[in-house]
Amino acid sequence: MRILGIDPGSLVTGYGVVERRGAAVHHVAHGTLRPPRTAALAARLAAIQQGIREVIAAHRPDSAVVEQVFVASNARTALVLGQARGVALAALSAAGLRVDELSPQEVKRAVVGTGGARKAQVQRMVQRLLALERVPAEDAADALAAALCRAHQGARPGFAPRPVRRRAARGRSKASGWGRFVLRRAR
Amino acid sequence: MRILGIDPGSLVTGYGVVERRGAAVHHVAHGTLRPPRTAALAARLAAIQQGIREVIAAHRPDSAVVEQVFVASNARTALVLGQARGVALAALSAAGLRVDELSPQEVKRAVVGTGGARKAQVQRMVQRLLALERVPAEDAADALAAALCRAHQGARPGFAPRPVRRRAARGRSKASGWGRFVLRRAR
Repeated sequence: MRILGIDPGSLVTGYGVVERRGAAVHHVAHGTLRPPRTAALAARLAAIQQGIREVIAAHRPDSAVVEQVFVASNARTALVLGQARGVALAALSAAGLRVDELSPQEVKRAVVGTGGARKAQVQRMVQRLLALERVPAEDAADALAAALCRAHQGARPGFAPRPVRRRAARGRSKASGWGRFVLRRAR
Repeated sequence: MRILGIDPGSLVTGYGVVERRGAAVHHVAHGTLRPPRTAALAARLAAIQQGIREVIAAHRPDSAVVEQVFVASNARTALVLGQARGVALAALSAAGLRVDELSPQEVKRAVVGTGGARKAQVQRMVQRLLALERVPAEDAADALAAALCRAHQGARPGFAPRPVRRRAARGRSKASGWGRFVLRRAR
């Protein structure tokens, strides 16, 4: 069972893939997605979407995990983080992956042993647990930590994409792969 | 020239398509995307992504426009809105559309004549300007208003998707459609 952890961010999105074989968890891959800072917002977000798709295509995970966010900072920061996070969640779900959300405390407790662990501790423990040659970058370490935590858990209720209902002005009904839509064209 | 306006929201995402022919702007379509409220977050966001793709496929716009957000409310609300907004922006840009962002004041001024117009005024003016039989729903009206505003403007600098740089632990270099990646696989 392969698990993809994602740590979304507008500047840097970390990813980490681990594989569980029996009771052991092995490292598969990790890295960061860095959209060009000079690009426009929509293009940067599209780049994150595309990057996640390529990671999924390259490593074929069975499920995905993303940390929950408990917003401590201001609304501006929350909006910017939310944009990257939304793209990541949608990309994972659209790829047919079950997406679990874990609290940061849960992840830290599973990896370091305490819910209040610092970033550097998480990085070092992830390196040790997965026998990595080097300390992984912060965002990649967080993604690996989430994947590690998920790998050590049992089966949990999963999430799958469901159809969106589209309400339009008027017109005829039309079936589609995403359920039954009312595709209407107004004059 | 066809313009798609999107008013993103976690519960309701409005869309509106208008076409400019000479000096006149005509209504093409509008409606709302409503992912099932009972679905998990990632699935709801994937549904918005899919819904926007279907709107683009159905109406083939030449460019897109989304209102800027000036966060007034709290961080929690900003995160939730950000998630839907990120998905919308990424979906538009990934479809190859240029995505412009307009301020709410700019849009209201263009449609109602004053930057401080209320929702109901925007709905009524959009109905009148596009000769719609009925008053459009709030979110669809906002999307149509943004598209209308954009249609009345001249050409503006556009945005296009750019490649994302992926930094991974180590390995070999590999070219891809999204630029040159360093696809690395750690032991």
